[in-house]
Amino acid sequence: MSKPGLPQGTRDFGPETVRKRNFIFDTIRSEFEIYGYEPLETPAMENLDTLLGKYGEEGDKLIFKILNNGLDHDSKKESARAAFENILKGKNDKAITERGLRYDLTIPFARYVATHQHEINFPFRRYQVQPVWRADRPQKGRYREFYQCDADVVGSHSLVNEVELIQIYLTVFEKLGMDVEVRINHRKILAGLAESCGGAGYTNLITTAIDKLDKIGMEKVKDELTEKKLTPLQMEIIEKYLHIEGNNEAKIQQLSALLPNQLTQSGIRDLQYILKFFGSENPKADFKYLPGSEKVILDFSLARGLNYYTGIIFEVRAKGVNIGSIGGGGRYDDLTGLFGVPGIPGVGISFGVDRIYDVMEELKLFPETVQRSTQVLFFHLGEEAAKKSFELMQSLRKEGMRCELFHEQAKLDKQFKYAEKKNIPTVVIIGADELKSGMAKLKNLATGIQSEIKFENLNQGLTLNA
Amino acid sequence: MSKPGLPQGTRDFGPETVRKRNFIFDTIRSEFEIYGYEPLETPAMENLDTLLGKYGEEGDKLIFKILNNGLDHDSKKESARAAFENILKGKNDKAITERGLRYDLTIPFARYVATHQHEINFPFRRYQVQPVWRADRPQKGRYREFYQCDADVVGSHSLVNEVELIQIYLTVFEKLGMDVEVRINHRKILAGLAESCGGAGYTNLITTAIDKLDKIGMEKVKDELTEKKLTPLQMEIIEKYLHIEGNNEAKIQQLSALLPNQLTQSGIRDLQYILKFFGSENPKADFKYLPGSEKVILDFSLARGLNYYTGIIFEVRAKGVNIGSIGGGGRYDDLTGLFGVPGIPGVGISFGVDRIYDVMEELKLFPETVQRSTQVLFFHLGEEAAKKSFELMQSLRKEGMRCELFHEQAKLDKQFKYAEKKNIPTVVIIGADELKSGMAKLKNLATGIQSEIKFENLNQGLTLNA
Repeated sequence: MSKPGLPQGTRDFGPETVRKRNFIFDTIRSEFEIYGYEPLETPAMENLDTLLGKYGEEGDKLIFKILNNGLDHDSKKESARAAFENILKGKNDKAITERGLRYDLTIPFARYVATHQHEINFPFRRYQVQPVWRADRPQKGRYREFYQCDADVVGSHSLVNEVELIQIYLTVFEKLGMDVEVRINHRKILAGLAESCGGAGYTNLITTAIDKLDKIGMEKVKDELTEKKLTPLQMEIIEKYLHIEGNNEAKIQQLSALLPNQLTQSGIRDLQYILKFFGSENPKADFKYLPGSEKVILDFSLARGLNYYTGIIFEVRAKGVNIGSIGGGGRYDDLTGLFGVPGIPGVGISFGVDRIYDVMEELKLFPETVQRSTQVLFFHLGEEAAKKSFELMQSLRKEGMRCELFHEQAKLDKQFKYAEKKNIPTVVIIGADELKSGMAKLKNLATGIQSEIKFENLNQGLTLNA
Repeated sequence: MSKPGLPQGTRDFGPETVRKRNFIFDTIRSEFEIYGYEPLETPAMENLDTLLGKYGEEGDKLIFKILNNGLDHDSKKESARAAFENILKGKNDKAITERGLRYDLTIPFARYVATHQHEINFPFRRYQVQPVWRADRPQKGRYREFYQCDADVVGSHSLVNEVELIQIYLTVFEKLGMDVEVRINHRKILAGLAESCGGAGYTNLITTAIDKLDKIGMEKVKDELTEKKLTPLQMEIIEKYLHIEGNNEAKIQQLSALLPNQLTQSGIRDLQYILKFFGSENPKADFKYLPGSEKVILDFSLARGLNYYTGIIFEVRAKGVNIGSIGGGGRYDDLTGLFGVPGIPGVGISFGVDRIYDVMEELKLFPETVQRSTQVLFFHLGEEAAKKSFELMQSLRKEGMRCELFHEQAKLDKQFKYAEKKNIPTVVIIGADELKSGMAKLKNLATGIQSEIKFENLNQGLTLNA
C-alpha cells in the first residue's frame, strides 16, 4: 500500500514546531490572563444553522460540511436522494448535512454568549485559541486548518478596553522579541468621510476601495471610485484624506480640518482618549504614561475590510519584514444580535499565529531552550550499569529534569548520534568502570567538555547546569 | 431568531472547566516531557483512505465524513448524483466525500511515522493531546467530540519503556491526588490460555469473552464459551485461570502451574522483569526500587478488547469510585504495517481525561488556585481615581499579576458583586479620599479583612500575599 498523504491545505506539526508554536501561544495566553481574560473552548462542529449566512455568500461556500451518518438506512434513502438534489442546486439540506466545522472563533463565541447571557458575569473577557477550517484554495501561507487566537471583552463601552488591548499587543510582541507597530483608526471616521463624499450610502463603497489601497495602489483606487460616479470634488477629499501625514497630533489636526462633521469628530475624540494613555510628550504629567507611544500609529487608510466593526479598529504590522498584518481587531456594537440577543457591545483583537511564526523563524527569534526537549541522556552500557543509571535518572526526574536512558545496549557512537539528533545537551556515561568507581562521566555536547562526578552529587551537578 | 444549540454530543467548555481540564492536561504533559516524550499534532481531517478499514466495520460507520465542496458546479453534478447512490448503498465514494475527522490519535500517529520514517530519530517518543470525533450515540459520559491524551514510544523492544509508562501513570495520578491501581497482563498469556483450550484459533473468542467479564459476570461468560463448544475440561482451565488470586507472586505461581506452555511462560518472564523494578520486598537490594509496588497489580482477567496489542497490556482504575478504566494501553508489534512500513514495534498508554475530570470533581481534588483567574480587582470610583488605579495596576501586571480595573464608575455594591462572581480574592479601592492620602484600601474577599497600604508599597504588599 502506498503511503497516505495529508488532505490539501493541512499540516502535521512535529515536535520542534509544536514547541515553537506553544512558545507563541503561551506568551499570548499568559498576557491575556494578566489582563483578566478567561479561556473558552467551543466544539469543532457547530450546527449549520449557526454558521450559514454569517460570513457572506463566499463564506458559506468555504464552510466544511459534515455528511450525516446513516444515510444508507433503508428508511432514509428516498428522502436523502431528494435532499441531495438541493445540495446539487447549491442549497443546504439538513437531510444530508446538519453540521459544519467552525469557520472562525467569533460566531461560536457569539453563540456561547447568547446562550449563556443570564449566567455570564459581564463585562465578560474571554480568550480562545483553537483551530478553524476553511475550504479555501490552499496557497503559500493559506491553510485549510489554522489556529485563531482571539480575545474579546463584551458588555462594556469603556475605551480603557481598547487601551488594554493595544497594551497586550505591545507587551506580547516585546516578549516575542518582535518590533511592531499598532495602527489604529475609527469606523466613525470612515463613515464621516463617506458622509462628506456622497452620504452614508457610500460608506461600504469607500471603505472597500480604501481597504484595497495597499494591494492595488492609489491610482486604481481612484479609478474604481470614479467609476462609481464620485464627483471630482469628492475624489479630492478622499485623496486629501489618504494623504494625511505627520505624527499622530499633526494627523488629527489635518483630519479635523478636512472633515469637520460630527461623526468624524466623535471618532477623533475616541482616538484622542486612547492616545492620551500612551502620550510621552509631557513628562511632568501626574499620570504615568504607558510605554510604546511611538509604536501606536494613527492610520486613516486602515479599513479592516467589510466586517462588523463600528468603532476603533486595530492592525499590527511587523517592522522590517514584508508579511502583511500579524494581528487585528476592533470594536463592534452588537455581537449577538444575529442570535436574537441585541445590545451586547464589545471589542476584540486577534493574533495571526502562522505569520508570527514565520517572522520569528525568519528573524531567528525563538529562544534556544524552546528547541530542546530531553535535557539529559543516560547511556546504556550493559544491564548492570543501566540499572544504576535508571536509579540515578529516576531521582533527577523527581526534581523535574527531563531525562532518558538509551533504550538498549549499543555502541557509544550510536548513542551519541541519538543525543545529537534529539538536541540533548548533556549525556551521562556509566559503564562497568564507573560502576566500580562510583563516578559518572558527564559530557556537554555543545562544548565537548567532559567531567566526572560522584553518583551522589549528580542531581546537584546537573540541576545547577540546567 | 431562536437561540442556536450545540450539535448533540458536543460541549462548550467555559472558563472554570477549561482551567480544570488544563490542570489535568498540563500535569500529564509535563510528566510525558520528563520522560523524554515529545509533542506531535496532526490535522483534524485525514483522507478517508487513511481512516477507513482501520477500526472494523462498526468503526467505519462512526467516522464523521466531510462533504466535498463545490458539488453544485455544473461540471460535477452528474457524477455526484451517481456517486451519491454509492453512499446510499453504504459504500464510500470520493466524489462525495474524500476526508473524515480523526477517530483516534493512533492511526494519525502511524500515518505520521510511516511518512516520516527516514527523518525520525528512533526510538521515537511522542505524545499527543487532541480531540477526536465519533458519531456514536451520545449518552452520559460518552461524547461525539472528546480529547485523547496518548504517549507512545516506537522503534524499541525494551521493557524499560513499559516500566517507565507505569511510572508515568503512578506519578501523574499522585500529582492529581488520585488513588489508583495499574493493572497489567500480557497478551501472550491470553494466547497461552487459548492454546491450552482449543488452540490459537480460539484466542479472539476467549479474549472477547474474558473482556466482558466485568460487564456480564462469570456465569454468562461461561454460557457464552459453552455455546462455542468449549469442552468441560477447557472450561475448567478458564475458570481456574480467572480465579487465580493472591499477591503478584502468588498469582504467577498459580498461573505458571496452570499453563506451563511456552507462550504463557514467555509472558510471565516479561511481567516478572517489569515487576522487579517495583519490588519492595528486599530492602537490602543494590537497586533502589520504584515506589508504588502495591499499586501495580497483575490481573489475568484484563483483556483490553480486540485491538492490536501483542505484549504487555495496562489499565488504570481509580480506587473508591465506580467509574471504570481511566487509562489504558499496551505493546504492539507493528504500528505502521497498515501503511506499508512493517517492523516498527512500540508501546503506548492513554489517559481518559473526561473520566479523570469527573473523578476529581466528585472527590473535590482540584486545587483552589486552579479556579481563580484575576487575582486583583481595582474598583472604579471616578475618572481621576481610576487613572491612578490604572497606573498602579499596570505596574502589578508587569510583574505578572493578573489584574483588572472595573470597566466603569459604579456603586461599590456592583463592583463587589462582579469580584465575587469572578472569584477574585482581592480588591483595591481608590476613591477621592485615597487619592488625597496616597493610601489604597485593600480588601480580602475571603476573610473580609480590610487594610490600608501606601500606593508605592502596593506591589510588594500584593505580590507577597498572592
